Amino acid sequence: MTGALAFDIASLHEFYAGGRTIHEVVDRVFARIAEVNDTGIFLHLSDRQVLLAEAQALGPFDAEAKPLWGIPFAVKDNIDVAGMPTTAACPDYSYMPTADAAVVRLLKQAGALVIGKTNLDQFATGLVGVRSPYPIPRNAIDANLVPGGSSSGSAVATAQGIVSFALGTDTAGSGRIPAGLNNIVGLKPSVGALSTAGVVPACRTLDCVSVFALTVDDAWRVFGIAARYDATDAYSKDIPATGYGPLPPALTIGVPAKTDRQFFGDTVMEAAYENALAMLAKIGHRIVEVPFGDFYDVANLLYEGAWVAERYATVKDFFDTSETSFHPVTRRIYGAAKTLSAADAFNGFYALQALKQKVQPIIASVDLFCVPTAPSHYTLADLVAEPIRENSRLGTYTNFVNLLDMCGIAVPTGKRADGLPASVTLLAPSGQDGLTAALARDVHQAAGVTMGATDWSLPTAATPTAVTEDEMIDLVVVGAHLSGMQLNVQLRDLNAQFSREAQTSDAYRLYALAGQMPAKPGMIRVEPGKGGNIDVEVWRLTPAAFGRFVAAIPSPLGIGTIDLSDGTFVKGFLVERAAIAGATDITEFGGWRSYISAQTNQRAQGTG
Amino acid sequence: MTGALAFDIASLHEFYAGGRTIHEVVDRVFARIAEVNDTGIFLHLSDRQVLLAEAQALGPFDAEAKPLWGIPFAVKDNIDVAGMPTTAACPDYSYMPTADAAVVRLLKQAGALVIGKTNLDQFATGLVGVRSPYPIPRNAIDANLVPGGSSSGSAVATAQGIVSFALGTDTAGSGRIPAGLNNIVGLKPSVGALSTAGVVPACRTLDCVSVFALTVDDAWRVFGIAARYDATDAYSKDIPATGYGPLPPALTIGVPAKTDRQFFGDTVMEAAYENALAMLAKIGHRIVEVPFGDFYDVANLLYEGAWVAERYATVKDFFDTSETSFHPVTRRIYGAAKTLSAADAFNGFYALQALKQKVQPIIASVDLFCVPTAPSHYTLADLVAEPIRENSRLGTYTNFVNLLDMCGIAVPTGKRADGLPASVTLLAPSGQDGLTAALARDVHQAAGVTMGATDWSLPTAATPTAVTEDEMIDLVVVGAHLSGMQLNVQLRDLNAQFSREAQTSDAYRLYALAGQMPAKPGMIRVEPGKGGNIDVEVWRLTPAAFGRFVAAIPSPLGIGTIDLSDGTFVKGFLVERAAIAGATDITEFGGWRSYISAQTNQRAQGTG
Repeated sequence: MTGALAFDIASLHEFYAGGRTIHEVVDRVFARIAEVNDTGIFLHLSDRQVLLAEAQALGPFDAEAKPLWGIPFAVKDNIDVAGMPTTAACPDYSYMPTADAAVVRLLKQAGALVIGKTNLDQFATGLVGVRSPYPIPRNAIDANLVPGGSSSGSAVATAQGIVSFALGTDTAGSGRIPAGLNNIVGLKPSVGALSTAGVVPACRTLDCVSVFALTVDDAWRVFGIAARYDATDAYSKDIPATGYGPLPPALTIGVPAKTDRQFFGDTVMEAAYENALAMLAKIGHRIVEVPFGDFYDVANLLYEGAWVAERYATVKDFFDTSETSFHPVTRRIYGAAKTLSAADAFNGFYALQALKQKVQPIIASVDLFCVPTAPSHYTLADLVAEPIRENSRLGTYTNFVNLLDMCGIAVPTGKRADGLPASVTLLAPSGQDGLTAALARDVHQAAGVTMGATDWSLPTAATPTAVTEDEMIDLVVVGAHLSGMQLNVQLRDLNAQFSREAQTSDAYRLYALAGQMPAKPGMIRVEPGKGGNIDVEVWRLTPAAFGRFVAAIPSPLGIGTIDLSDGTFVKGFLVERAAIAGATDITEFGGWRSYISAQTNQRAQGTG
Repeated sequence: MTGALAFDIASLHEFYAGGRTIHEVVDRVFARIAEVNDTGIFLHLSDRQVLLAEAQALGPFDAEAKPLWGIPFAVKDNIDVAGMPTTAACPDYSYMPTADAAVVRLLKQAGALVIGKTNLDQFATGLVGVRSPYPIPRNAIDANLVPGGSSSGSAVATAQGIVSFALGTDTAGSGRIPAGLNNIVGLKPSVGALSTAGVVPACRTLDCVSVFALTVDDAWRVFGIAARYDATDAYSKDIPATGYGPLPPALTIGVPAKTDRQFFGDTVMEAAYENALAMLAKIGHRIVEVPFGDFYDVANLLYEGAWVAERYATVKDFFDTSETSFHPVTRRIYGAAKTLSAADAFNGFYALQALKQKVQPIIASVDLFCVPTAPSHYTLADLVAEPIRENSRLGTYTNFVNLLDMCGIAVPTGKRADGLPASVTLLAPSGQDGLTAALARDVHQAAGVTMGATDWSLPTAATPTAVTEDEMIDLVVVGAHLSGMQLNVQLRDLNAQFSREAQTSDAYRLYALAGQMPAKPGMIRVEPGKGGNIDVEVWRLTPAAFGRFVAAIPSPLGIGTIDLSDGTFVKGFLVERAAIAGATDITEFGGWRSYISAQTNQRAQGTG
C-alpha cells in the first residue's frame, strides 16, 4: 500500500496548505524507500538532516513564490547535483561536482528538494535499464520486466511514489520508454528547451533533460520552471512554455499506417494501442494513418554510425584509457565507433537530411502524432538472451524523435488486457511541447488508472486556463469566425487555439452588415451602458498567424481593442462606422450565434 | 575596347526590343572571347550552331514571359549542363551529364543561353583561382594578380564582358572573392536558396550556387529566377526572393572594430574600406563597430578539421583510388582529412555551435554587416611562394559566412588609390538576400565605376518599387509612426521596411485626439469627397512583425483597410468613432506632419 497522501504536487501542496510540514513528507519519502526496498533505484541518497535544513531554508509555505515548495524529486545520476557524486553508472568515471546542473538549480530555486541520484543505463546508452554495474532497478509494476532505460531509477522512483517527479535524460527515448513501462508520465522536451549544462553528454547534438511525473500537470509545471535559455549551453534554445491550455475540439493526429506498425508479435500491446486511438477519436480528434517507413529509417540511423561515434566522442579520452571500466554491452557499442571516420559521420548527416526532407510533408500534414511508447514489454530474461536486439526494438517509436527535432510526451492509457501498463507517446515539432502535453492531459484523464505503481487515484487535472503570455496574441471573434461557423477554418488553418468564451462590456452594439457573403456582423463601441454584452470567443494566435489574419480582413472590418465584461482588453473585430448605414442593429440578440439561430428558426418555420 | 553594347540585362533587352537579334549578340560573345584571348576562362565552349538553334527555339523577344530572353551566361564547371562535360577542373574525374543542374534548367527556361563551362580551383577548393591543371584565367583587371577563386573563370568571363552573368559556387567565399578581385557583383545566396542538385559537392552542408553579374539588378533578377525549393536537394530551403525594394533611410551596419580589422599590411585596401564605410554613412546609414574575433574563429574552423573532412568525404572513392589525379595543393588538403575520425568531426560541430551562440547577440544587434570582400590583392608570384597561407588570408572575411548560415553580396566600391578594384561584402542572416542586395545596389551606384574590366558605364539602377508579394504585409501609418516621429522606432525595432509615401482617397477625415501621449491623430472613413487626401506612409512588415505591431496598438486606435488615392487598399490605422468626441478635426492640414509643423511654428512664434 502506498498510503493516503498522494505525492502529486497538488496533493502535497494541499497537505502543506493545511499546516503539515516538509518534515512529515521527508519521513514518508524515507519510509517509502524502505517499504519499496529496491536497492537498484538510488546510487546516492540525500542526507536526511541536510534535506531538513534545506527545507527549513525555504521559509513558510508559499506556492506562489516557490511553485515547487517542499516537493521531493530525484535526479538521474548523469546530471550534476552539488555535493553528490556523478557516476553516469560507471564507478571509475565518477566525479564530485561543485555546482548543480542548470536545471537542478532552477528546480531547487523553485523550492524542490533533491532526494537522491538515480541509477541508469551506463552513460545513458540503452533503453532497457539493465546496463548498469549496480543492482538493476525493478520495474515498479512487474519485477520480471525490464524497468526501461536509460533513466531507469528516475522512472521507478516516481512510479513507486517515492518522489513527486524525477529528472531523466533522453537521447534515443530514455525519458519515454521507462515512463511507458512504469505507468507514469514522461515529458521529453523540445531539443534545447532544458539546459544540458552540468549533464554528462551522450550525443550532445541530441541530448535532452526530461521529466518523469505522476501527472501531466506536474510534468508541465516542472517543464515550465526548467525551460530557460542558457547561454552556457551551446545547444540551448529559447523554447516558450506555452500552449498548455484548452484544446480545440478536433486535432488531426497522425498514426503509423496499420501495415507499418511494429509490435514484434505482441498482440496485447497492439490491441492496447488501438484502444488508445479509439479513445482519442471518441473525444473528438481525427486519426489519420500516415506511412511510417521513413521514420523507422531515421530511427535506425541513431545506432548505425555517426551518432554512435558521437557517444564515443563525448567520452573518448576516458574510453581510450579505461575501456575495461565499461559495462560489457556499452563497451561493445562504444568500441565499434572508434574506427568511424569523419567521412562516415558526414554520410550519416546526409542520410538524415535526405530523410528529414522526405518526412517533412508528413509532419506538416498533421497537428501531432500518437505512437505506442514501446512496442512490447520485455522480461529480464529476454534481455539476457538478446541484449542489443530487444533494446533496439524498444526504440522503434522513440529513436527518430530527437533526430527530427521533435518534442514528445509518454502518457499512460490504462492497462493492457493482461494488466500490464499501456502507454502512448504524443509527438510534435519543436516548440509544441504545450500542445502535446495538453492532449496528454486529456488522454491520462480518460485512462482511468492509478498513478505509477501506487494506489493513488489520478487527481482531476487542473481546469486549464488560457495562459496569457508575451508571445501569443489573444483575438476576440464576434461573427463568422466563431467555432463551427463558416470562417472558423481560417483560424484553424493558422493553428489558432481556442481560449475561452467571453462577453464584451455593455459598451458595444452589434449590427448585421448588408451585402456580406458569408453573412457577417459588425460591432461598434458606444458609451458604456448604451450597448449590450455581446457573446464572443477568444482565440490565441502566434504573432505571425495574427499578422496574417489581420492582413486578410476585408474592409469595412478591422481590428481594435475590445473591452470584455471580465475587465480585460483584448484585440478583436470592430467595424468602421461608415459601414453600418443600412445594417440591422441586432444587439438585442446578445451575439451573432443567437441571431443566426433565430434567423434559421424563422426560415425553418417559413418552409415547414 | 569592349564596344558600345553593354551586356547588362537591361541594355541587351533594350537592344532586342529595338529589333536586334540573338545572332548579333552571339557574334559579339565570340568576338569578345577572341579579343580577350584568355584560354584559361572556358574549359568547354558551346557550339555556335547549337546556340543559335536554342536561340531560335525561344521564339520572338518577350521579356515578360522569359525574363532572361537571349541573355548569355557562363557556368562554373562543377555545375552540370546537359551535353557538356563536367570536370570540376580534374580531367580524370570528368563525366558527361545527361541533365542540366536544377539551377541551369531554371535559367534556360527563363530564356538564358549557356555560352560555356568555366575554369575553377579544382573541386572548388581554394579562393585563388590558380589551383587548376588547365591554363589559369587571368585577372580581368590586372594579369599579374590572381583572379580569385574558386569560381575564377565565371568571374573573369563576366568581368570581361563576355557574358551578362555567370554561375559560380561558394562554400568558403568562391562566389565573393573573385567578384571582389575582378570589379563585379557576386551574390552568394542564403544557404539552400538555390538548389545544388547537379552540382559537384565540396561541403554539402555549406555549398551554395552563386551569381556573378555586372550589376546588382542583374544578380537579383537571376537570383529571383533561380531561387526555388527543390525536393531533390536534401539541403534545399524555401527562401523567398523578397526585400529588394526601397531601403529605409538609416540601417544599422555592423563593421569589424578597427582593432579587429585584418589587411595583412595592405594599407591601400584598408583605406578603400574606410572610404566605403564613409560613403555608407554619407547616404544615411549608421556604422557600428563590433568585435570580430569570434567571426575569425568561425572562419578558421572551415579549414581545420570537420569541414575539410567533408570535402574529402564527398569524393572519397575517387580520391582513394586516384589520389595522383589531384592538383598537388588540393591533394595535400584532401589527404590531410583522410585520417580524421568521426569524433574529430563532432568536435568541429561543437566548436562551431559554441561560437554560433557567442556571435548571435552581435548578429542580432545590427541590420546587416559590411566587411571588406578580400583583405588584399595577391600576385601570381605571391601564390607560388605561399600557396596555402595567401589563400587562407583571402578567406578572412568570407570563410565564416556559410558556417553561420548567412547570405552575402560582394559589390564594387570604386578604385583603390592604386587603381585596383575595391569591394565590400554585405552580409545578413539567412533569408535577408533582398536587404543585402538592395543596399549593394546603392553602394554600386555610389561607386561610380565602369563594370568589370569593360568601359561600360554602370546603368542607373531600375527605380526600386515596393514589390507586393504574399508574405510581406503593407501598413499605412498616419501619425506618430511616420518617419522621424516619436513612435517610428517601433517599426524599426520590428525591422519594418519603408515602402513609399502615399495619400488616402478623399474619404477620410483626420482628428487630433485628446489626451494622447505622445500626441496622436485618429482617422475616420467618411463618404467619398467628404474628406481630404491625407498624407501617409506605407511600411512593410513580416507577418510576425505585423502581428506584434497590431497587438500593441492601444485603444481607441485599430487597424482596418485604407483606400489610397492610387486605388490600392492597404491595412492601416483607423480610430474608433467614439473616440473623436472632443478631438479636433485637422483634415484641412492634409496630414499629421503638416499639422505638427504648423503647431510647432505657432509655438515658436508665441515664444519668439
